[in-house]
Amino acid sequence: MDLGLIPHGAVAAREGRVVWTGPETEIADALEVPDDAVVVDVEGAAVIPGFVDAHTHLTWAGDRAAEYGARLAGATYLEIQAACGGITSTVRATRAATEEQLAALAARRLDSFLRHGTTTLEAKTGYGLTLEDEAKQLDAGKVAHPVRRVHTLLAAHLTPEEYAGREDEYISLVCDRILPALAGQAEFVDVFCDEGAFTVEQSRRVLEAGRSLGYRLKIHAEELAHTGGTALAASLGAVSADHLIHITPDDVALLKEAGTVAVLLPGTSYTLHTTYAPMRELLSAGVTVALATDFNPGSCYSENLQMSISLACQEDRVTPAEALRAATMGGAAALGLQHEIGSLEPGKYCDLLVLDAASHQELPYHWGVNLVAGVIVGGEVVVRDRQLVSPAVAPRATH
Amino acid sequence: MDLGLIPHGAVAAREGRVVWTGPETEIADALEVPDDAVVVDVEGAAVIPGFVDAHTHLTWAGDRAAEYGARLAGATYLEIQAACGGITSTVRATRAATEEQLAALAARRLDSFLRHGTTTLEAKTGYGLTLEDEAKQLDAGKVAHPVRRVHTLLAAHLTPEEYAGREDEYISLVCDRILPALAGQAEFVDVFCDEGAFTVEQSRRVLEAGRSLGYRLKIHAEELAHTGGTALAASLGAVSADHLIHITPDDVALLKEAGTVAVLLPGTSYTLHTTYAPMRELLSAGVTVALATDFNPGSCYSENLQMSISLACQEDRVTPAEALRAATMGGAAALGLQHEIGSLEPGKYCDLLVLDAASHQELPYHWGVNLVAGVIVGGEVVVRDRQLVSPAVAPRATH
Repeated sequence: MDLGLIPHGAVAAREGRVVWTGPETEIADALEVPDDAVVVDVEGAAVIPGFVDAHTHLTWAGDRAAEYGARLAGATYLEIQAACGGITSTVRATRAATEEQLAALAARRLDSFLRHGTTTLEAKTGYGLTLEDEAKQLDAGKVAHPVRRVHTLLAAHLTPEEYAGREDEYISLVCDRILPALAGQAEFVDVFCDEGAFTVEQSRRVLEAGRSLGYRLKIHAEELAHTGGTALAASLGAVSADHLIHITPDDVALLKEAGTVAVLLPGTSYTLHTTYAPMRELLSAGVTVALATDFNPGSCYSENLQMSISLACQEDRVTPAEALRAATMGGAAALGLQHEIGSLEPGKYCDLLVLDAASHQELPYHWGVNLVAGVIVGGEVVVRDRQLVSPAVAPRATH
Repeated sequence: MDLGLIPHGAVAAREGRVVWTGPETEIADALEVPDDAVVVDVEGAAVIPGFVDAHTHLTWAGDRAAEYGARLAGATYLEIQAACGGITSTVRATRAATEEQLAALAARRLDSFLRHGTTTLEAKTGYGLTLEDEAKQLDAGKVAHPVRRVHTLLAAHLTPEEYAGREDEYISLVCDRILPALAGQAEFVDVFCDEGAFTVEQSRRVLEAGRSLGYRLKIHAEELAHTGGTALAASLGAVSADHLIHITPDDVALLKEAGTVAVLLPGTSYTLHTTYAPMRELLSAGVTVALATDFNPGSCYSENLQMSISLACQEDRVTPAEALRAATMGGAAALGLQHEIGSLEPGKYCDLLVLDAASHQELPYHWGVNLVAGVIVGGEVVVRDRQLVSPAVAPRATH
């Protein structure tokens, strides 16, 4: 895969957007560098586009560390639900939290995402499950922070306790009340279509209602079992279908034909100790693949997209270049932002990472650590973590 | 497993060693706190002993990132050896480097180990493979740094190019020249006993020669195949046997009887995409288990022992408590230092970590990131990384 690497390259930005990239030696001929330009010399370190994490459950309250330990000690799903509450405990804690508390949690997590190189992130609701609590979660995810965000309404994440046994009634609440009330406040609508979650028919109701209200579409599909969510996504022209562990060759063809992006979440397979989605087969078929973290308190508590890249290489045997592309351009496509972010091309936002490495190949090779030494969002240095960047940043003048 | 957790606990240290631990409310009655004591308030964050990483190849030169990518792209072992050089390229680069260059690389890596919570680390030679180059590597590993180190001579890591086909002659060089010349400069001697490395008989020669010179014994055993290194280690009273992926039930019994520590390296299984050593079976049999990184440029390029804890929980289904104990007390036992480090008990060095977490259970649960917010070695704060620690450190006076 050709990443368009430029040895000894340079990037020029103006007003937050890339205006030129090329060999460092050509910059003087290519454009006039104003006297008050901020010059960042990274001394040969690799520079890559900022990561685009297209699937996170950013905003929630509560603590499920004990549940994780109980699961390893052999507790069954039902024992955990009884003792620790599982996802229901997250819904209760999120409902009990104020918007300010949730926003503080979100800001702290965004700090960690940013330190690990995520410059754009999709944030889902889905632990409120009432109009008020979904709205609160949505608003909390909009806390002021350098990380760019795209918001997704996932009111159809699970059926809340008070609707137990009345799933269709809850879907009606989502379609008739929650989606209309929050239209225009989130870019996407999403639904958890799976065994033990919502059926294809219930999912269709949610997505069609959302589409008619102007939301773009996402779906959680084929994570726990194959139930047909991918075909639904393709038939409705969803921007992305996410998880896809139990996808079939027919599904792969449908995604390709519909142009629906496959968002893969290897960190969840790692945490749940299940199989990995077939990234190699999707790439071979020409489907656009995005790698995302699935950051959430139950099945993947990690902000580090570098580990998703590592897992994709280790478990799906894709190359570092393929994994990096999926974590940048793939993520951008999964958010419909492929013309704004995801690569360092003139016209796009200047969101880039300075690696504590000479090559992007180190991302999966030197694993389990944070190789991001510096982060620039919209042309501004927002993380300057290591010696590599701190002494090398040489502003010639303020701007 | 009882970790001896103390809710709302406090640790008191004097002259680098722990003098008291207990509930915070009891400290005033238990001991007199001098006026010039340094008080660190971690505001409820979990405090654990510093990690003891008992198996690392700390000091080497060269860059094998391209080899990693080639392997993922399907290159065979022989193709990689031809194109990239494999381990031979590391030997060449290490031999070509000066001691100062190697020491600078070691110091930079030790910074990363320390940031990730490793306060004591075992450093092996094994990329020099001549007396001069092994001595150089050994000395470079002794660079001034807060991380405590234990040194191991691994001249019998592989047969160098110039001895190809003359393995026994190389073993004679190791036994007759390298080991005697460096006696007293490294605590341990180690040998890579495996298919494609050294035989049990060659390994026995190295370990017996080392033992007679006063070295304590370690062995790389049963990583690639079962060849009998574990039984050799037990019969010679080795302090540890490391890797143990292909260990048998008989081997487990021998380790238990000999009191030899099993050092497991799950990061290597992850990188090489192989099976994991049977940690659960070893623990059940009562063998002391240590978790270590195996940090090295070929099969595990990671300084983060937190990921070894995560992998042990995920892949071997041990509990967070079992994994934490293996990464602290287990590591200490694997270095023969169980009376000096590995737990927070009076008399031991005050080496501790402040976690960005309320409980040690978060270590595997909140994975792929660095939960270490502060590090204290010998009673001195050496890492103060996050808001959690920086504003909370309240020295009442200098000491």
